[in-house]
Amino acid sequence: MKRGQIFIVSGPSGSGKSTVLHEVFKNRGRMWFSVSATTRAPRAGEEDGVDYFFVEKDKFLSMIEHDELLEHAQFVGNFYGTPRGPIEAKLSEGYDVVLDIEVQGAAQVKAKMPDATSIFIKPPSFEVLEKRLRGRGTESEEKIAGRLERAMQEINDAYKYDYVVTNDSVERAAAVLQSIMEIITERK
Amino acid sequence: MKRGQIFIVSGPSGSGKSTVLHEVFKNRGRMWFSVSATTRAPRAGEEDGVDYFFVEKDKFLSMIEHDELLEHAQFVGNFYGTPRGPIEAKLSEGYDVVLDIEVQGAAQVKAKMPDATSIFIKPPSFEVLEKRLRGRGTESEEKIAGRLERAMQEINDAYKYDYVVTNDSVERAAAVLQSIMEIITERK
Repeated sequence: MKRGQIFIVSGPSGSGKSTVLHEVFKNRGRMWFSVSATTRAPRAGEEDGVDYFFVEKDKFLSMIEHDELLEHAQFVGNFYGTPRGPIEAKLSEGYDVVLDIEVQGAAQVKAKMPDATSIFIKPPSFEVLEKRLRGRGTESEEKIAGRLERAMQEINDAYKYDYVVTNDSVERAAAVLQSIMEIITERK
Repeated sequence: MKRGQIFIVSGPSGSGKSTVLHEVFKNRGRMWFSVSATTRAPRAGEEDGVDYFFVEKDKFLSMIEHDELLEHAQFVGNFYGTPRGPIEAKLSEGYDVVLDIEVQGAAQVKAKMPDATSIFIKPPSFEVLEKRLRGRGTESEEKIAGRLERAMQEINDAYKYDYVVTNDSVERAAAVLQSIMEIITERK
């Protein structure tokens, strides 16, 4: 069995990253979406091992100590991280593993797994990004402004990625992402 | 006849951009490399219309005035620019046109031709870039340091491009570049 490859995929809020990834998953077999570990409590409907691995804080700290996390961060008092074990298992089974993580996490994973391929999904322009974020119609001006500022900072880090793909159309971005995966893995 | 597409390709000295483009040209038909206009004198062996369009300064200034250049710049006392006419002709004939230009020129072209696709070829790391530049063995330390600094500045602008492709192997980078062109043009 040929070992799978790791793909780190990042993109700011409004880049359409999730939609693009969903499209690739529909068309390409033997792929697995990495599941994060967290110390926060499960919300209604969330399933352990599917949405997150829900763990106690002591367990999380022990995972850090034993280098069982490829990256981790703290956010509003809770820990989040990417467990190495399930990823290694899937890679051995020949699955390609997709890590949907933000810029800081991506750099941590790349440092621990230099063979990982990193891909940044980018909105076509600041104007389009703003339109997409406003289009949701559910958030305050202040929250939108915050998201826009954060997106700009993240886009400035795009040069650190192995590949950058502009999401001007979901079909096109998904096709390019899939081609990159086919070329890296030498598997159609 | 379906109109061709413009591809703006940039990459710092040492990115291996020329080798990658050469590989794509070998494998893909109906492509044309844009030829720049310049006011500098032809060097031995350089052919008008192949290496450059060699024009007088008056002619060049008149081309600027009549908006016949997609971008232009001055460098060590000479003018360089990308004539629009030959590109339009090739696009009408169904050829895809590749513009091999640097970051400032790329932004000028993108402003005049928003449908152009811009691609940045990136060295895999600063260390590899340095090794490649030193490997030439023909340049002074000072010149290498200058090239490295300029490359770093250019890589920081990579986020402005529609696509970024890391040249970790020529075959792989050429395959990704070719896939992007196939997807954009909907032509194999």
